[in-house]
Amino acid sequence: MHIISLIQQRKQGQPLSTEQMDWLVREATAGNIPDYQLATMLTVFCYEKLSAAETIAMTRAFVASGDTLSWDDVEQPVVDKHSTGGVGDKVTLALAPLLAAAGLAMPKMSGRGLGHTGGTVDKLESIPGFRTDLDSTEFRRILAGVGCAVAGQTARLVPADKLFYHLRDATDNVRELGLVTASVMSKKIAAGAPVIVLDVKSGSGAFFADQEEAAGFARMAMDIGEPLGRRVGCVITDMDQPLGHAVGNRLEVLEVLQLLSGSDGLRDLRDVLVAIGSLELVLAGSYPDIEIAGEHLNWLLDSGQALAKFDEWVKAQGGELEQLEFSPAEFSGVARHSVIAADSGWLEAVDCLAVGNAARSCGAGRLSQEDEIVPNAGLLCHAKIGDQIEAGQELVSVFIGERQAADTGEILQQLSTAFRIGKSPVTRRDSVLEMLQP
Amino acid sequence: MHIISLIQQRKQGQPLSTEQMDWLVREATAGNIPDYQLATMLTVFCYEKLSAAETIAMTRAFVASGDTLSWDDVEQPVVDKHSTGGVGDKVTLALAPLLAAAGLAMPKMSGRGLGHTGGTVDKLESIPGFRTDLDSTEFRRILAGVGCAVAGQTARLVPADKLFYHLRDATDNVRELGLVTASVMSKKIAAGAPVIVLDVKSGSGAFFADQEEAAGFARMAMDIGEPLGRRVGCVITDMDQPLGHAVGNRLEVLEVLQLLSGSDGLRDLRDVLVAIGSLELVLAGSYPDIEIAGEHLNWLLDSGQALAKFDEWVKAQGGELEQLEFSPAEFSGVARHSVIAADSGWLEAVDCLAVGNAARSCGAGRLSQEDEIVPNAGLLCHAKIGDQIEAGQELVSVFIGERQAADTGEILQQLSTAFRIGKSPVTRRDSVLEMLQP
Repeated sequence: MHIISLIQQRKQGQPLSTEQMDWLVREATAGNIPDYQLATMLTVFCYEKLSAAETIAMTRAFVASGDTLSWDDVEQPVVDKHSTGGVGDKVTLALAPLLAAAGLAMPKMSGRGLGHTGGTVDKLESIPGFRTDLDSTEFRRILAGVGCAVAGQTARLVPADKLFYHLRDATDNVRELGLVTASVMSKKIAAGAPVIVLDVKSGSGAFFADQEEAAGFARMAMDIGEPLGRRVGCVITDMDQPLGHAVGNRLEVLEVLQLLSGSDGLRDLRDVLVAIGSLELVLAGSYPDIEIAGEHLNWLLDSGQALAKFDEWVKAQGGELEQLEFSPAEFSGVARHSVIAADSGWLEAVDCLAVGNAARSCGAGRLSQEDEIVPNAGLLCHAKIGDQIEAGQELVSVFIGERQAADTGEILQQLSTAFRIGKSPVTRRDSVLEMLQP
Repeated sequence: MHIISLIQQRKQGQPLSTEQMDWLVREATAGNIPDYQLATMLTVFCYEKLSAAETIAMTRAFVASGDTLSWDDVEQPVVDKHSTGGVGDKVTLALAPLLAAAGLAMPKMSGRGLGHTGGTVDKLESIPGFRTDLDSTEFRRILAGVGCAVAGQTARLVPADKLFYHLRDATDNVRELGLVTASVMSKKIAAGAPVIVLDVKSGSGAFFADQEEAAGFARMAMDIGEPLGRRVGCVITDMDQPLGHAVGNRLEVLEVLQLLSGSDGLRDLRDVLVAIGSLELVLAGSYPDIEIAGEHLNWLLDSGQALAKFDEWVKAQGGELEQLEFSPAEFSGVARHSVIAADSGWLEAVDCLAVGNAARSCGAGRLSQEDEIVPNAGLLCHAKIGDQIEAGQELVSVFIGERQAADTGEILQQLSTAFRIGKSPVTRRDSVLEMLQP
């Protein structure tokens, strides 16, 4: 087998066999295929589109490229969750303790990653004392005791994806659906949970621009799950505006505390949380249908049991919630600014990507792996699409890190054009657009 | 400017501007663009197709990447020739002295290259004593005196093409017409002659499989020539069978001697030679039309003047024709074998590529730059398509090098299936299919 003949074959529209895909992934991961040939193959995949069989073969080969985890020794049904990424997405922080309270186990290996805000690990580490550098024994002990645990990725899961993703990223080849699916699903499958729910975001702040594209990915991910022995469900959620109000690591932790306390002001966030959670419960076999599962989760939220589980979990990982500055007004290390509405009317649209980028510019996220996150930096977006706005009202509270102070003008400018206020009433949006079960 | 944004733009179907193409070629040649990104860009070019403007811009940028030659000090009209490559293509060896005899000057920088047989330099070096390592002064002196000179490429012409070609070759991206045109034309333009005739081969032994594809390239090359200040003409010639009878370095030199002696048995080769030569004369302004130019060239061949010029040229470059083994029967260092016709009938078709590969296996060509050529190795193909064949007649004389002896069985097997004999008469083929003038 030779890479040039595979490139040639694929260019002529003939899919790679499972054996050829295995060879490609194995040899590439072993460093036996020069980057320029692998990049060419990936470009060809983008033009020719991966077939379903190729996507399955690539996913399997990715999984086989590194370690895999097993949770067979865990008593509770084990579930996992993945989000395709959005602005203000703090769902994992609430979902893990909520499902733990509902009797499931949710082990989560999270990266720090790049993004508008940090990853789940960064958000949790904004809680004083919270440790994510757990070794395997510690991790499994906390999971067994609490029902959830989150660690920075330490296991050598799917090294092939790291290589392929780096090349795709450096060659504008990130959008082919089969490649996206293999990348996402291989990591979830290597992580070992038999039940996986994907939060597929759709909208201006998401990887998938519209619901149709998001649904296409969802269906492909579900089709991959079955032959690989996973129950996979998807919730397609709106990302035309930030989820909740908070965008920024510690701000999001505070919002999660509010959410778990049963706050009524976080409808969109709670809807997404309950949709994903109830799908997990149904796929795990704990409840016969979504509605009943959802009722139970709402009860866990309203009764304070989810919050109690959050406290227990944070304590187990060394976090001291009592040390958290509970009011953003007291936040240290950041300067507070406001974006004020210039006109009265209704909030019509949000440039969600611009909001995310602004949060990153405040210090909430990273542009490169070396960047340091400012835990208190970020945004509180006070209005949702459809809200009536009065001129002079504060639209966004902005918390800018000390090192980012020079960018203040630019950040405020960026944000003031990101919120479009119209003259006529606008319908509010549902945050949950679609639920797909296998 | 950044390579990722150029890749992105080109993928969206938006051609690169001249400025962007300049940047791409300049930065790539300077080593500032990683191979995997350049390979991706080339793959995208293959899918999106280079526009005419992009092809011109790439050609210009290629030329600018290295040295360029000038022949302003040469008295005679200076012409150049390029062949897209075929089996048994020894035209340059005859064309250079023929045109010199006709009063033109033909300076030629030739590579050794890979191929079924060696390049022009290898063929000439099969003449004892012939030197192609001429320095610039020597080269220009011979050119001025004789009217032609051939040297191994020493000048640093079009380094960008070397880089781009290496990557295209290693990623199955050699076939995009714009890339092919820029590669060929940049080298010809950098080589400085104001008149260029391309011998565009078409058929089973050629880069272009059919006449239409060949004509497409020819038109594009001519379109590039004009804005770059060159008179470019094209002759499309048949490569469904080897040109002439000889395939192999010294065998081809001997055939050229026969041709220049006015042999009647080499109709196909003489037709191609005269077609290219007369087009050169017309484009150089020496004759008003192809027919009259052709008549003059035929007279130069028949009168022995072309042969005399060949002798003069070979001597000028140190060659000793008197040392050449004039009869293949006396060839040393090779074993002679025969491929015999199994059936009677008419030669219907030749797998020209297989013939070329067999010649290479005999030792006539290289698979990698390090391979050493056996000057006496190669084939004499005795039949042309349309010839009547008697069972038992020798179809091919095969000269296999000593180091290649182990492959004898395979070579003979390969050749015996390469010539298809049919039961009905077959029309002979013209070797010149089409002539295109600017």
